[in-house]
Amino acid sequence: MTGTAIDFSKRLDQTAEDTEALLARLLADAPLPDEIVRPKRLIEAMRYSSLGGGKRLRPFLVVESAAAFGVAREAALLAGAALECIHCYSLIHDDLPAMDNSDLRRGRPTLHKAYDDATAILAGDALLTLAFDIITRDEIHKDANVRLLLTRALARAAGIGGMAGGQMLDLAGEGRFGDREPVDVARLQQMKTGALLRYGCIAGAILGQSSQKEYQALDDYGRALGEAFQIADDLLDVEGDATALGKQTGQDAALGKTTFVTQLGIEGAKKRVGDLLARADAALSIFGAKGDVLRAAARFVADRKN
Amino acid sequence: MTGTAIDFSKRLDQTAEDTEALLARLLADAPLPDEIVRPKRLIEAMRYSSLGGGKRLRPFLVVESAAAFGVAREAALLAGAALECIHCYSLIHDDLPAMDNSDLRRGRPTLHKAYDDATAILAGDALLTLAFDIITRDEIHKDANVRLLLTRALARAAGIGGMAGGQMLDLAGEGRFGDREPVDVARLQQMKTGALLRYGCIAGAILGQSSQKEYQALDDYGRALGEAFQIADDLLDVEGDATALGKQTGQDAALGKTTFVTQLGIEGAKKRVGDLLARADAALSIFGAKGDVLRAAARFVADRKN
Repeated sequence: MTGTAIDFSKRLDQTAEDTEALLARLLADAPLPDEIVRPKRLIEAMRYSSLGGGKRLRPFLVVESAAAFGVAREAALLAGAALECIHCYSLIHDDLPAMDNSDLRRGRPTLHKAYDDATAILAGDALLTLAFDIITRDEIHKDANVRLLLTRALARAAGIGGMAGGQMLDLAGEGRFGDREPVDVARLQQMKTGALLRYGCIAGAILGQSSQKEYQALDDYGRALGEAFQIADDLLDVEGDATALGKQTGQDAALGKTTFVTQLGIEGAKKRVGDLLARADAALSIFGAKGDVLRAAARFVADRKN
Repeated sequence: MTGTAIDFSKRLDQTAEDTEALLARLLADAPLPDEIVRPKRLIEAMRYSSLGGGKRLRPFLVVESAAAFGVAREAALLAGAALECIHCYSLIHDDLPAMDNSDLRRGRPTLHKAYDDATAILAGDALLTLAFDIITRDEIHKDANVRLLLTRALARAAGIGGMAGGQMLDLAGEGRFGDREPVDVARLQQMKTGALLRYGCIAGAILGQSSQKEYQALDDYGRALGEAFQIADDLLDVEGDATALGKQTGQDAALGKTTFVTQLGIEGAKKRVGDLLARADAALSIFGAKGDVLRAAARFVADRKN
């Protein structure tokens, strides 16, 4: 491993550790007035699904894109935690029997398996809601306009034109509502998985009150990284190791899903990842050496084994 | 009917009509960049559950509490629409087979019956998310701090310490997760149904940048109204007419639920409603004649037949 690779890995681990601690605190200190009964089972379920693991890639992108503008780490971590709440909620709901019906996640039973469907639905709802509580907090930025921009962009990344809309198109493409609907994988995944990853990148620009040019650069970078992430995911489902992944492989093929691999072939998909990494690098050029960690992040995403 | 009653009914209908038109517009013009594929089924499902009916009581409370401070009607309607999105999402998820398993809502099949469970989960998620897109919009208030206060208060009303937490306590009280957990109905309902109704009332104070005293008055009023609303609901489940209600009655008894009626008896519950109306009136005293519509709203909520 090169020095840079060791440094990257350390930074990623440190942000994961900090995010874990922050989420644990946010879920322990959930802001409840005295008169309110603490819904213990709900909070336990939220903790089950949001603590204890994950690479915390989305918070890492917030922290590192914000670092390019000298934003205080604590503020970026808080915005990252809000984004991670959205990510965790989406995994809980996607795993439900009515959706992807998955039993295993990160090597553990999924939330509805460990608890029950009603608890999983509510815990997902509550994590989604908590994200919007967190992202508005004063500690994130002194300027209320900045916090509002962050909040609205988060709602759009998660909503109809982002993650939720992409998940619906994905289910329609599987033929869940009748005939399989035709799928444009790149556009679908730009919504389903891309929107949150891209948010992680532009959140830094918003927090840093960047120039329009810098914002656009991080937006371009985020799009390239998001697509590379999904292609790697599709490749892992074909070539990956179930133990390392902590979930079953071959699920896309079992569902007859249209993926980057079915559209481009394995070699075509790998070539496309190379093109996307070049695009990510090019987008970051205006940041010079300040873009090094983000450059490494794109490589990490493309080469990951889980 | 007295003149005041006619006027109240007209005002309620007008706000319902305006809210309907606004929600239809918000869901038709959902903010999607050109490159995004419009997830048609998702938007159709969101429209199915959020358009075509309902008293729109929560938006009405926002509009009328805001009117006491001379806030522009358009701004209050927009905040009301955000609140109504949260309300509609909660009905969709509560109706799911894994939750209350209800087939009928407002005299029509529930969303998961008309579509399917996956669509219902996603439509609920997307409405919850859309609420936070709407509540941050510039048209709601020129001061970003005001919009942030509205946003955070909405997240708290809907979250762990509010609606989602209350629904979890309600399910636990039904014995859904093992032995029935003891229930304090007043505190549970203050969360489950009270938090959103109360938000409708304090939203006006936030929009109107009220004094602390006026905020507290609307907060007290909103709490009294919220509890009166739920007692009326519990009474309707025992004494109401299923056709007028557009849903089955006797569901609480069938589930062996602890309600205001099982705790206080029918007469005790009715007496408690009277006390709450007096409390609502007292809270509004500082508004003088400007509180008349809200006074009538509390009576309407207590006396409603559906």
